[in-house]
Amino acid sequence: MRIFGIDPGSVRTGYGCIESSGSRWALHCSGAIVPPARSAFPEKLQVIHLELLARLTDARPDCVAIESLFHGLNTRSAFALAHARGVMLLAVTQLGLPVVEYAPAEVKRAVVGFGRAEKPQVQQMVTMLLGLAAPPKPLDVSDALAVALCHAHTAASGIPQADASPFARGRRVTSWRQLRPEDLEHR
Amino acid sequence: MRIFGIDPGSVRTGYGCIESSGSRWALHCSGAIVPPARSAFPEKLQVIHLELLARLTDARPDCVAIESLFHGLNTRSAFALAHARGVMLLAVTQLGLPVVEYAPAEVKRAVVGFGRAEKPQVQQMVTMLLGLAAPPKPLDVSDALAVALCHAHTAASGIPQADASPFARGRRVTSWRQLRPEDLEHR
Repeated sequence: MRIFGIDPGSVRTGYGCIESSGSRWALHCSGAIVPPARSAFPEKLQVIHLELLARLTDARPDCVAIESLFHGLNTRSAFALAHARGVMLLAVTQLGLPVVEYAPAEVKRAVVGFGRAEKPQVQQMVTMLLGLAAPPKPLDVSDALAVALCHAHTAASGIPQADASPFARGRRVTSWRQLRPEDLEHR
Repeated sequence: MRIFGIDPGSVRTGYGCIESSGSRWALHCSGAIVPPARSAFPEKLQVIHLELLARLTDARPDCVAIESLFHGLNTRSAFALAHARGVMLLAVTQLGLPVVEYAPAEVKRAVVGFGRAEKPQVQQMVTMLLGLAAPPKPLDVSDALAVALCHAHTAASGIPQADASPFARGRRVTSWRQLRPEDLEHR
């Protein structure tokens, strides 16, 4: 079992893939996708999409866990993030992978045991849970690994599969299925 | 010269392509993209992406004009729309097409002469400007044609090329360029 976690961002997207190793979870790979700052916005989306497709193809996960939108952001940042998150969900779906989403507080509760934990606390717990020699950096990467670990813990009690609504208010669980040709014949 | 207009939506996306015919603009094609309501959100994004790629490939426009985010929406709808708009900008960029964005008020001002015009007024003007026998329906389609006409009018005084920011506050004009391999070598 391999879980690919995503901490989405329009400026920097952290990702981290974990795999079960006996009764523990181990780091498979991690990193960040950072589109060039000077690019036009649609080009940034293209970089995010291409890079994520490549990282997912390399990692070959069984499922993807992504953080839901964070409401503390200002509107401009939240909208930019939502555009970026759209192309991320697209990449995941194009590879036929199931995707679940977790709110930031859910992730913190699952990993640290406290929904309002600070990012460095999350980083510490991720380091410990994965048995890493050094904390994963930057914080986007440890956040992405925390999302994956959150799903690993939730999955232990039956893997939920969400419809990855753009705006999670509690996780809606629906069955997952592939896009079928008849889904396109609607016009 | 052919301009492809998009009125983006997560539930229904109108599109309309116009082409210059002497001193006037004529309808080339139009329609709506409606992902199946019962599908999970990532699948809807996939339908929007695939359909828009197909419609753009059929229409072969020189450029694309898309409406910017509308602030009157509630947050949930705006975030869903922003996810959908992300995959639309991706499709346009993947085909190497330049994209410009216009705020709803700009479109109305360009087409009706009044930034607070109602949708049926926009529909009437679109019908007249394109010399159509009947008004284009539904309203998403006439709105998409209005975005294209707005760009046609603006383009008459030098075609601006925007960076299609997720959140237009005045159109930022930057030069457009294709994604280059080195844009991906940033990690």
